[in-house]
Amino acid sequence: SAANGATAVLGDKDDAKKRERLLLKTAKGTRDYGPAETYCRDHIERIVKDVFMTYGGSCLDTPVFERKDVLAGKYGEDQKLIFDLMDQGGEQLALRYDHTVPLARYIAMSGATIQGKIWQVGKVYRRDSPVMSKGRMREFMQADLDIVGAWDPMIPDAEIVSLLCTILSKLEVGEFTIKINHRKILDGIFEVCGVPPEKIRSISSAVDKLDKVPWSDVKKEMTEEKGLSPEVADKIGEYVKHKGGPALLEQLKADEILMSNPSAKQGVQDMELLFALLKAYNNVIDRISFDMSLARGLDYYTGIIYEAIVEASAPPGFSSANAVVSPVTDGAPAPAPPKKKSKKPKAETLEEEEEIDESQVGVGSIAAGGRYDNLVGMFTSAAAGEGKKGASLPCIGVSIGMDRIFAIIWPKWVEKGMRSKETMVYVMAAGDGLLEERIRLVQELREAGIKTDFLAKKKPKLPAQFSAAEKDEVPFDIILGADELKEGLVTVKEQKWEFVDGKKAKVQSTEQGIKVRREELVSWLKNTPTYLNWSSGRLI
Amino acid sequence: SAANGATAVLGDKDDAKKRERLLLKTAKGTRDYGPAETYCRDHIERIVKDVFMTYGGSCLDTPVFERKDVLAGKYGEDQKLIFDLMDQGGEQLALRYDHTVPLARYIAMSGATIQGKIWQVGKVYRRDSPVMSKGRMREFMQADLDIVGAWDPMIPDAEIVSLLCTILSKLEVGEFTIKINHRKILDGIFEVCGVPPEKIRSISSAVDKLDKVPWSDVKKEMTEEKGLSPEVADKIGEYVKHKGGPALLEQLKADEILMSNPSAKQGVQDMELLFALLKAYNNVIDRISFDMSLARGLDYYTGIIYEAIVEASAPPGFSSANAVVSPVTDGAPAPAPPKKKSKKPKAETLEEEEEIDESQVGVGSIAAGGRYDNLVGMFTSAAAGEGKKGASLPCIGVSIGMDRIFAIIWPKWVEKGMRSKETMVYVMAAGDGLLEERIRLVQELREAGIKTDFLAKKKPKLPAQFSAAEKDEVPFDIILGADELKEGLVTVKEQKWEFVDGKKAKVQSTEQGIKVRREELVSWLKNTPTYLNWSSGRLI
Repeated sequence: SAANGATAVLGDKDDAKKRERLLLKTAKGTRDYGPAETYCRDHIERIVKDVFMTYGGSCLDTPVFERKDVLAGKYGEDQKLIFDLMDQGGEQLALRYDHTVPLARYIAMSGATIQGKIWQVGKVYRRDSPVMSKGRMREFMQADLDIVGAWDPMIPDAEIVSLLCTILSKLEVGEFTIKINHRKILDGIFEVCGVPPEKIRSISSAVDKLDKVPWSDVKKEMTEEKGLSPEVADKIGEYVKHKGGPALLEQLKADEILMSNPSAKQGVQDMELLFALLKAYNNVIDRISFDMSLARGLDYYTGIIYEAIVEASAPPGFSSANAVVSPVTDGAPAPAPPKKKSKKPKAETLEEEEEIDESQVGVGSIAAGGRYDNLVGMFTSAAAGEGKKGASLPCIGVSIGMDRIFAIIWPKWVEKGMRSKETMVYVMAAGDGLLEERIRLVQELREAGIKTDFLAKKKPKLPAQFSAAEKDEVPFDIILGADELKEGLVTVKEQKWEFVDGKKAKVQSTEQGIKVRREELVSWLKNTPTYLNWSSGRLI
Repeated sequence: SAANGATAVLGDKDDAKKRERLLLKTAKGTRDYGPAETYCRDHIERIVKDVFMTYGGSCLDTPVFERKDVLAGKYGEDQKLIFDLMDQGGEQLALRYDHTVPLARYIAMSGATIQGKIWQVGKVYRRDSPVMSKGRMREFMQADLDIVGAWDPMIPDAEIVSLLCTILSKLEVGEFTIKINHRKILDGIFEVCGVPPEKIRSISSAVDKLDKVPWSDVKKEMTEEKGLSPEVADKIGEYVKHKGGPALLEQLKADEILMSNPSAKQGVQDMELLFALLKAYNNVIDRISFDMSLARGLDYYTGIIYEAIVEASAPPGFSSANAVVSPVTDGAPAPAPPKKKSKKPKAETLEEEEEIDESQVGVGSIAAGGRYDNLVGMFTSAAAGEGKKGASLPCIGVSIGMDRIFAIIWPKWVEKGMRSKETMVYVMAAGDGLLEERIRLVQELREAGIKTDFLAKKKPKLPAQFSAAEKDEVPFDIILGADELKEGLVTVKEQKWEFVDGKKAKVQSTEQGIKVRREELVSWLKNTPTYLNWSSGRLI
């Protein structure tokens, strides 16, 4: 099979032996996230979920794979990127490509009666060319919120745009812009410029490239590839070059030809209402760019469409997937992964290298979405059978690219030397090990809700215990001594960290620590400023 | 293909039409979890993760699929249950079967140098016969914690057993028992009883059935199917019928024949040390049953093995996957799903029905695990190439079956009428709608961290707004009026809920609500007993 294509390049005498060796790696376009990274990702996820719930969202969890016919005919050209499961004598299944189609399937299954906000956070799958450095993977995490149901015009739309602004602000991704356009305005423009109806979608996809290539290239595609007359293309060019705010709307409203088109007129009215509503939301309107070149690929959009862009670049440290394995007990976030060794056989390296490119390019779009009023109806109609029309339900949603956000935030975490663990206390013993006494105290603290650990050795040396606690950057070391225990006392040493030459290091201290009564230890710990700070803000 | 086998049963004139109709369902053995259910599942997950972190665990996240050769040869007979991905011109991939093998692959990739506690929570996949009612699915959630590295004897083992007890106690799953045995004791017993070495694993798997079938059946399997002499079988029978606590250990230690076997002796010493350590942990030892019939299927176990059992039965309400779709805006947890309609064509129903059986049988084992000291070495050796020995690393871990726990806890939530949303405030307006004023207040509250929602209508009627707030069981309704706003006032009505005939209902009240100064609203709300209770305990 094609899977062994790379191996076939090997022709030398080591061939047989090489074939037998197990390749220790994750699948192409996927990677492990070690402790420090998952801790950062969890932080991102909690912020996103908290905003989803603050806006009144309810959670939905669908299976990672769907029956193939549920996904069929939903993604246009990108259908080929769907991961199929092998038919092992059952159903034809495929991994989900996004959260939108499973949501629409869920809504249709429930009889298209749902009204409300639904969020989903989970991984989705695309057989795309991975660019790990930009956070473009074959397995990647998306966080979606969708507003389902027939509500009054543009209110859900404004909620979604405001939600997106709130999330990106809270995540501190840096400066961002939300580009917005309206499918009906675009379609109206194409109509008044004279694009034949059957060419509208393909001309639309040419327009969508304007953020990457100059107008001359797009015009060339329209005229030479797609057979549009240069005059029509130029008319389109006049419209789609516009970007702006509410003033641009006034300009469009003054355009009598455009306003005579019902589709464009409806779109302009929607945008006007949207801008009015967004003014009532705090801090949103300044982030918006009404961008007439934004078209977005998916066919199912029917109303406003949007895309969030950050200017931050992908960090050099966020690179090839399989190379990144951070050591578990290492408290500090993982350092930049080492460069790939060139010792491997040629065939292997080839496959690796196609994953590593564009590493200095910006992360680009980190969230996107739009209104799709007909997708649920596609499912109910298909289920009702040939020719029958099923119940429909308008929807609007946004997908947040969690890996792209991680690619932006992670290097900042490394720079700030963020902790990657919440262990607050490390229990140690001098001398004879006092294993059972250590366990008893550890367990007492854990039962009081204090995250506590100890070295799983019978008679560990004190330096080994301090060193283990230091690795986890634990703020409180508690040292047990046989004589002190008889007096009902334990020694607490608080540990602090500082930056020395850009590296986080434990502050060396000659203090012997404080003696605390064992029975008062829990309340003593919980009232220290360090503990209070941590439990209110979690991250120190 | 076999996937369409069911359709072939249809022979009538509607055949063609039926084929075209989309089957609106999730894949066999999978289901959606709607808002109320995901809220409960999230509650379970948070407790488990919190205990993992309290014990000093670090998180790992591996891809949902692995290269096929990573999974090959790890699961014995159950290999056939692995979900393969279709070879679409790349690698041979398969969905992960558990978290243990990907963890071992990760450790091996990092050079087998990791020392510490690693936890993973995520879905795993098995092409097994689904029994939805017991929480046995083809896609199911497992939460694992593993202790990796060479530590002193039985200390990690005691940590894991204690961790499992803590989690099950905190989850309030009801009475539970942790059955423990030791592979070395079992192997020693087989040796002294005279089982030939090549039969040990298959005799072991016969013993493992003793919790389901009587000894006479197991003996029959040993003698008739597996060719053991009846005398040898009877000797084994004498040993494996024992269950107990530390007293059983004394009995084994007094058995000179068994103690002359080095494997058994080592196992008994381990168990003795384990019991001694477990006494230092609070509330653990009473949960333990040293059960000499526990054998566990997987080949890779090398030390103690364990399984947690609850007596709770699967609830009748937790049934067939695809039927359960809970409405989104419904605040109350979803009711028992309706019975399947019998209108569907026969072929479809057939496939459904094989999923629904054993529905009154107990959920049974909810967590299990053991020590596996050689699995990492299998990977490093296989990667090092033929005949070479790679670095090894001892490990011990536990997997918690989150769906089985959900099957136990969910009916209790329904009974208690738990909320399924955290929205604290619903903002409404009388008369003219006051849409922008509503949005401004909603946004102010959200920015203050108060979960707030409103009806996405321009001029909604007051009853429609109260009804929407009631569905979400929102405790505070805030009503805006144009005149009041001019005076800087808003009206707050606190809503309370009670059980009437076993159904949760809003307490009817004739109170007109309290007028609060708009500028003091946030601090007023945050100081109400309802708000304080919620934010300290989250669940009311």
